Amino acid sequence: MSATAVTDHDTPLRTLFFLSCSTGITAETLGHSLMTQFESTPYQQVTVPFVDSFTKADATVREINRVAADSGLPPVVFSTLVDPRIRRMLAAADCVFFDFLDTFIEPLERELGMESSHTVGRSHGMVDYDSYMTRIDAINFALANDDGVRAEHCEHADVILLGVSRTGKTPACLYLALQYGLRAANYPLAEADLDSARLPEVLEPFRAKLFGLTIEPERLHHIRNERQPDSGYASLERCRDEIGRMLALFTTEQVPHFDASTMSIEEIASQLVQQARIERRI
Amino acid sequence: MSATAVTDHDTPLRTLFFLSCSTGITAETLGHSLMTQFESTPYQQVTVPFVDSFTKADATVREINRVAADSGLPPVVFSTLVDPRIRRMLAAADCVFFDFLDTFIEPLERELGMESSHTVGRSHGMVDYDSYMTRIDAINFALANDDGVRAEHCEHADVILLGVSRTGKTPACLYLALQYGLRAANYPLAEADLDSARLPEVLEPFRAKLFGLTIEPERLHHIRNERQPDSGYASLERCRDEIGRMLALFTTEQVPHFDASTMSIEEIASQLVQQARIERRI
Repeated sequence: MSATAVTDHDTPLRTLFFLSCSTGITAETLGHSLMTQFESTPYQQVTVPFVDSFTKADATVREINRVAADSGLPPVVFSTLVDPRIRRMLAAADCVFFDFLDTFIEPLERELGMESSHTVGRSHGMVDYDSYMTRIDAINFALANDDGVRAEHCEHADVILLGVSRTGKTPACLYLALQYGLRAANYPLAEADLDSARLPEVLEPFRAKLFGLTIEPERLHHIRNERQPDSGYASLERCRDEIGRMLALFTTEQVPHFDASTMSIEEIASQLVQQARIERRI
Repeated sequence: MSATAVTDHDTPLRTLFFLSCSTGITAETLGHSLMTQFESTPYQQVTVPFVDSFTKADATVREINRVAADSGLPPVVFSTLVDPRIRRMLAAADCVFFDFLDTFIEPLERELGMESSHTVGRSHGMVDYDSYMTRIDAINFALANDDGVRAEHCEHADVILLGVSRTGKTPACLYLALQYGLRAANYPLAEADLDSARLPEVLEPFRAKLFGLTIEPERLHHIRNERQPDSGYASLERCRDEIGRMLALFTTEQVPHFDASTMSIEEIASQLVQQARIERRI
């Protein structure tokens, strides 16, 4: 339980606790999502995963009370705790308690016409061996492909990303594998491809799977410059030239594409799944 | 908007909609988490990301109403829509509407003593260039290291995972990079390491960063057998032998470790951050 300060501040920071009987990822997702609506509030966060016993619950209550006493501000607690007894222990701590399951489970029970199972949080657990293997295989696929595309690889790909160096293809492929179980290959457009202004021959049979990632020249320059400062490769002129020719190629060859300059890895992946109308595998 | 059936069923499936003005990842995470409490309910899901205009909102309302009419069951809608006008449009569709933001924002506003900003969902967006680069660097670190550990690599690692082949080290390293921005190296224990029953020399200076992943022999046998069916490498005998010697090495060298047999990638990563008391970087 170590606190990570999000910003420095002279006044006491508000502390957020993310409590879970499992990984804490759902509680963090909920809490972070809500806190983006309060950007000017500085806070530090403490995630306590695997709160699955009275002993751990008790230690967590004491930690929350200590923070409340030290800072003079009751911590804001986001909980996905499933066990009602453990939840009651935590809700009684000196804090503002937001419980995710409790809030939504009852109306869902009414609508679905059944009681919830009260099983320990399994949304990020190993629920299904097949889904797990699908993800692992997709990750291995992305890794095996990262050194260069081969035709037999393309055949098994769900999507093939095209772009010049440092447009974010590799992280996007890995995220597509982890989040959606999709097999994403990635083809870095090299000088020879841009010169020819045509699709590389190896990709011809797989036109339906192609998707281009573009980026603003200034942004690409900035990213490349962090790798190879003041190199020709990173120069703004070179970035402008490569991107111009890449866009020409995408247009001539009718490769669908979008500008990922201001997008996170998650946004790129989500946009791809949406635009390319790919069926996710998990 | 394509629906993915979770299970086949003769009766009409319940349809879940995940609606977001951004990627939809938060809505999916929260919705899936709730649905793990209703495991016997078969459903299909439709994610509609980037609902950021009245046109898209209107198309989505029509899609929801169509599903309701066709199936005779009102869809369950999980929303993280931020714009109150768009939210009202969707809430008026023929559905059961669960809104994650609306539910918690008001009590949070009261507690934090300020109004929320109503900015479009940015919890999976590019909020912060530095965090983005931290993640990208961590991903590149995991990739660069995946072919074998070098001493200079270990120096920059936040954690170094040890284990025999196919214990899940690589996916865990990638997830640590994506979710927590952590630099995770991975050292596959080879026959020579197991023979010597000592830590590989290259790892000696980095004892504080080491963490072992173990696995049940039957599980390892199963996983390896899918790669190399009926091979010596995949045989149960060989798996038992390797794991036995690996555990002996961990004990002798006092390497902290846990059994990841039934853990998902997320659980392994979360457990590591917790047990190794690593400070996350994002």
